[in-house]
Amino acid sequence: MAVIGTAGAEALIPLAAVIGIAFAVFQWYVVAKVPVPAHDGGDLSAAQKGRSGHDESAEDGVDYRQVEARCAEIQHAISIGATSFLFTEYKYLAVFMAGFAVVIFMFLGSAQRFSTRPEPCTYDPARLCRPALANAAFSMIAFLLGALTSVMSGYLGMRVATFANARTALEARRGVGRAFVVAFRSGAAMGFLLASSALFVLYVAINLFGVYYGDDWGGLYESITGYGLGGSSMALFGRVGGGIYTKAADVGADLVGKVERNIPEDDPRNPAVIADNVGDNVGDIAGMGSDLFGSYAESSCAALFVASISSFGTEHNFAAMMYPLLISAMGIVVCLATTVVATDLAEVKTVEQIGPALKRQILISTVLMTVGIAIVSFLVLPHSFTLFDFGRRKLVKNWYLFICVSAGLWAGLVIGYVTEYFTSNAYRPVQAVANSCRTGAATNVIFGLAVGYKSVIVPIFAIATAIYASFRLAAMYGIALAALGMLSTIATGLSIDAYGPISDNAGGIAEMSGMPHVVRERTDALDAAGNTTAAIGKGFAIGSAALVSLALFGAYVSRAGIAAVDVLSPQVFAGLLVGAMLPYWFSAMTMRSVGSAALAMVEEVRRQFDSIPGLMEGTAKPDYATCVKISTDASLKKMLAPGALVMLSPLVAGTLFGTETLAGLLAGALVSGVQVAISASNSGGAWDNAKKYIEAGASAEARALGPKGSDAHKAAVIGDTIGDPLKDTSGPSLNILIKLMAVEALVFAPFFAAHGGLIFKHL
Amino acid sequence: MAVIGTAGAEALIPLAAVIGIAFAVFQWYVVAKVPVPAHDGGDLSAAQKGRSGHDESAEDGVDYRQVEARCAEIQHAISIGATSFLFTEYKYLAVFMAGFAVVIFMFLGSAQRFSTRPEPCTYDPARLCRPALANAAFSMIAFLLGALTSVMSGYLGMRVATFANARTALEARRGVGRAFVVAFRSGAAMGFLLASSALFVLYVAINLFGVYYGDDWGGLYESITGYGLGGSSMALFGRVGGGIYTKAADVGADLVGKVERNIPEDDPRNPAVIADNVGDNVGDIAGMGSDLFGSYAESSCAALFVASISSFGTEHNFAAMMYPLLISAMGIVVCLATTVVATDLAEVKTVEQIGPALKRQILISTVLMTVGIAIVSFLVLPHSFTLFDFGRRKLVKNWYLFICVSAGLWAGLVIGYVTEYFTSNAYRPVQAVANSCRTGAATNVIFGLAVGYKSVIVPIFAIATAIYASFRLAAMYGIALAALGMLSTIATGLSIDAYGPISDNAGGIAEMSGMPHVVRERTDALDAAGNTTAAIGKGFAIGSAALVSLALFGAYVSRAGIAAVDVLSPQVFAGLLVGAMLPYWFSAMTMRSVGSAALAMVEEVRRQFDSIPGLMEGTAKPDYATCVKISTDASLKKMLAPGALVMLSPLVAGTLFGTETLAGLLAGALVSGVQVAISASNSGGAWDNAKKYIEAGASAEARALGPKGSDAHKAAVIGDTIGDPLKDTSGPSLNILIKLMAVEALVFAPFFAAHGGLIFKHL
Repeated sequence: MAVIGTAGAEALIPLAAVIGIAFAVFQWYVVAKVPVPAHDGGDLSAAQKGRSGHDESAEDGVDYRQVEARCAEIQHAISIGATSFLFTEYKYLAVFMAGFAVVIFMFLGSAQRFSTRPEPCTYDPARLCRPALANAAFSMIAFLLGALTSVMSGYLGMRVATFANARTALEARRGVGRAFVVAFRSGAAMGFLLASSALFVLYVAINLFGVYYGDDWGGLYESITGYGLGGSSMALFGRVGGGIYTKAADVGADLVGKVERNIPEDDPRNPAVIADNVGDNVGDIAGMGSDLFGSYAESSCAALFVASISSFGTEHNFAAMMYPLLISAMGIVVCLATTVVATDLAEVKTVEQIGPALKRQILISTVLMTVGIAIVSFLVLPHSFTLFDFGRRKLVKNWYLFICVSAGLWAGLVIGYVTEYFTSNAYRPVQAVANSCRTGAATNVIFGLAVGYKSVIVPIFAIATAIYASFRLAAMYGIALAALGMLSTIATGLSIDAYGPISDNAGGIAEMSGMPHVVRERTDALDAAGNTTAAIGKGFAIGSAALVSLALFGAYVSRAGIAAVDVLSPQVFAGLLVGAMLPYWFSAMTMRSVGSAALAMVEEVRRQFDSIPGLMEGTAKPDYATCVKISTDASLKKMLAPGALVMLSPLVAGTLFGTETLAGLLAGALVSGVQVAISASNSGGAWDNAKKYIEAGASAEARALGPKGSDAHKAAVIGDTIGDPLKDTSGPSLNILIKLMAVEALVFAPFFAAHGGLIFKHL
Repeated sequence: MAVIGTAGAEALIPLAAVIGIAFAVFQWYVVAKVPVPAHDGGDLSAAQKGRSGHDESAEDGVDYRQVEARCAEIQHAISIGATSFLFTEYKYLAVFMAGFAVVIFMFLGSAQRFSTRPEPCTYDPARLCRPALANAAFSMIAFLLGALTSVMSGYLGMRVATFANARTALEARRGVGRAFVVAFRSGAAMGFLLASSALFVLYVAINLFGVYYGDDWGGLYESITGYGLGGSSMALFGRVGGGIYTKAADVGADLVGKVERNIPEDDPRNPAVIADNVGDNVGDIAGMGSDLFGSYAESSCAALFVASISSFGTEHNFAAMMYPLLISAMGIVVCLATTVVATDLAEVKTVEQIGPALKRQILISTVLMTVGIAIVSFLVLPHSFTLFDFGRRKLVKNWYLFICVSAGLWAGLVIGYVTEYFTSNAYRPVQAVANSCRTGAATNVIFGLAVGYKSVIVPIFAIATAIYASFRLAAMYGIALAALGMLSTIATGLSIDAYGPISDNAGGIAEMSGMPHVVRERTDALDAAGNTTAAIGKGFAIGSAALVSLALFGAYVSRAGIAAVDVLSPQVFAGLLVGAMLPYWFSAMTMRSVGSAALAMVEEVRRQFDSIPGLMEGTAKPDYATCVKISTDASLKKMLAPGALVMLSPLVAGTLFGTETLAGLLAGALVSGVQVAISASNSGGAWDNAKKYIEAGASAEARALGPKGSDAHKAAVIGDTIGDPLKDTSGPSLNILIKLMAVEALVFAPFFAAHGGLIFKHL
């Protein structure tokens, strides 16, 4: 028997979660020590005059009291904008959540005609399990819980980020190392808060549900899958809505400001600049937080569901059953140690050290986590046990699971490093894209698309290898564990991800508050490193989404009682083909939404420049609020159609065409969506950094293309603008498309199995 | 029993083929009556001076004798360029063909250790069939035959087109209707020649192979599949090589000529202009001809192979066995009647009538063909019979097959019309793309990508519906017939396709030979209609490729003896994922090839403008030959890597990872490739016509965006240039990728079944 039993598991999981939360609070506390003057509640023009004599670069004649006051104001404006957008969004989402909760209850309840009598258990018909109506009710509760936790994750992330951005800008006056630590600690505060609370809520829910379900673990973990559905459906709207918001503002601001008016990025004269900064927080921070929370929740649910029908479940081995949560708990501890390396042990002193310090974080956490996985695997799991493998029983040894989790973890590292290679301007691909700007925007776009396509190759082989190995060793449980493995270092991943937009915002605040050039250069260096880590983060998000979806897909097939998903059956193949089309349909909607919202933004910004006298000269203030409103309205209105597409496709396919067509649809969307998502993200990243490569002029080749404003640079800006919706709206939303459709199919499987395929039944 | 027996089938198929060839020769004869002065063999500057008094617009002071002489010269130069490129390409292909023929013989021979003893028949082990070595030899012969026919198709198409382009330009002086008829008759000459000779060669091969095979129809039709492989592998290199050639020249010519130097398209001062016109003939004409020949050959082979293991084959019902060829024969007759409508019955008199006349061709041929299919189905097929449905026997009625063929035919019509909607500037999508040019190239590209993505939706539903219906009714045979149905009107489809580049070239010749503006306007109108029909043609090519590949895939699964292609097996899913990645890998290569060849072209054109005094003033001649050489070298060198990717992927997957992984790979490439191909083609088409919409200025909206040279127009030109490699290189080559991998898997299936999966065997 294993070393750690039920009591150990019951103690260690909440302990790790509480340690993680405490660590997050500690980081926040350290960040909060950077003083930002209290905002007086006035608007941006009401800054106090005066001067602070305390900082190093005070001799340059900048009025620091005023700068600090402006920082506080701008932070306040961004925070207000972000909070008000999120609250408006949450109002819509509350309606959706309530409505969809009813749908879940009705569909699942109707699967057994709202029966309140105990049912024979699905995988052991000799015993009696809880009635279908209870499963419907608990699935609904789990859905609401997941949705609330997701919303909370996004919201808290946004709060941390808007709390930290001005502090990062202010610390940048004292040196790049100090600014880095503030930005990184803030990212860590978000990362640990999210990872720990996700684990904690799931753990509590399992224990509370267990009070009712008792020995009926099948029913318990079937209901728990609702948690993943709730998390991912909120993430969908967060990603799409936030993505449209941020890119409409960004594209609109750039097209008029940089291209037409030749003013720098983040210039306070640009009316869309506040909307742009708000967008970073609601899109990149809140959206990414909800997204990764969703992946985490879904992979845990998929693993738990599959485990519940293995010998862990039938023999009621609680500690082994909790293996996925124990892996996550270990992940929190490992990431904590990793974070301390960056914040306390290996100090960042120069600009060149930033990028390597962030990359080292990923490597350290991966290496440590491999040890952590081994420890958990050998302490918790029995030496051998049986898994359910689509009708067959499969004998599995504990070290198989170690390999499954590690395969996912290391595949993530490969994806991260490949993504960096294709999107960082330190390497040849981005430099070639920059070089193609010599002949204009058209060749830039052609080369950038080609780089995006090419960047798909290695990640797909990495994912395919991880899938093959874990599938072979432990069937669908192996896949779910590989997904968890990739996400096990989520706290570090999120720290690094959140670090990027915080630095980006800090740069904006430095520019807008009139800090000296040297400060802006420091924040730019932080931001450039953040761009690459953002691309890496997206790579992780997509890779884990692929694994999670496959695990959910497998769980769905088990739950729906499908014997085989044979490509050579008409309904499966038709589903596969249509499923592979869905990412395109979805991208068409989101791209068009960003495009038309950006057009509206461009017209408003142009109108303000043309009609507000003194705006270009800096003597008059732009009307930021109208731009914020355009982004808000556009994103809320335009997130509905793509959201509906994703939420309704599985319901329509399952209800009208049956479980097999739906299985084909899921597989098609998965294999096609991954490619579209990776190529879109990386084309966008490559264009962005090709532009930065020309701007930085760090090599002879780059200087020959520059400087800012040259024809080659203008061509690069066009590429960057095209990449914006690809990398920050369409691409990342596709992760959620593939995960969400799969988890929705899993939750609704009993209904589809009972009543699905209406059209074929009547043909 | 059926009305038409063996003797009827033996007579009707060659009769239709001969009628088709005669009709093609007749069209050529009519076109040849347009006089073009004999070219004196000198170079482009040696035109005779003089004046012809015979034409309507002679009063405008243009020296017509000189114009005609220049026409002849330019035609000669284009023809020489195209011929020399194709011959150089064929030299490479001959080496490949010989090498791959050996590979086929060795692999297939080794499947049974080069045994020369008769084998038990695959689907009737009680009888003895021909030895495996004979199958290897005949597969090799069929491969060579298919390759030669494909090369011939491409070459003849190019000859017809370069013969017709100057004649179309000259006839345009006498009115748009006359020019239309010349261009259309030339297209028809190519279409009928290709469709008829493809049918004829296949028919003769079956009969000759039959002399050896006798009653062993399994072996006979297995060997015949080599014909499809040969056709498609030549088409791959034709499409990729020709596509790189034409787009390197086109992009290079546009980037310097239109964007930097502000000279019109096809201006004789542009050094890349001859290369550009040569490209139209080797890319759009020869490439498209080989491509559609490949589809036709493959769908016929797939249908024949599947039929050979049905009751047609086991009962040796030759007439029913020949059903696919009889459908094609009927198609030739139907298209002949359709063509007569355009050339003789409904005369085109004004510019506005061109587009509708072409669209009417598709509609008429579809309606007539539906009747034709019914006639063939009820005269040839027994009332009911059994098909092989992956191990089961399935009872099928003759009207089922009528529905299968018709489903493909009408799905083609839907795809054609939807493609037109998304790529013609008469409708909203392209107008919105044009309108987005108001805010520059970035929004233009974002909107154009979105239109391409959106245009995938309906075609995929159309294909999925056709697949579902025909799969359900007649299993894999149904799919093969649906593909044949879509291709049954190939003669009309090719007429319309070839019409486009011929008109495009005619416009170029009109411009270069200095014809008056009114003539150029007429050829532009012909060309604009041709742009839309080219997009429709690509839609057909992709749709039929999807159906063909699925049919081949099914045949492969049967031949390899795979029981089920279960998505939920590790090797199938890994194959599926990697297969879905291949179109991206392939596109990355082809896009990059076009990009870097275009860069080289741009530099050469710039060099000539900078270093040849008097070039811009028209007093000095550019060096066309160097530009032709750049395109030639680039395309020959760069077609190898993508070609190798496509040819080797199935071999590597099958040999190392086995038949099931290969099955997954094929399915993944199919469902993903179709989407990439459709969206790439239609984004490109939309950008092209958005630009033309602004240039034509036919509405108030369009005039607000124009004229040529405005900022919006410049943005539109950038979009058009980006679309070039997408719509003419990557997109159309993907058809061949998915077909070719499938037919290769089918041909090599016995080897993979015997020796495949080396890696898994040793793990």
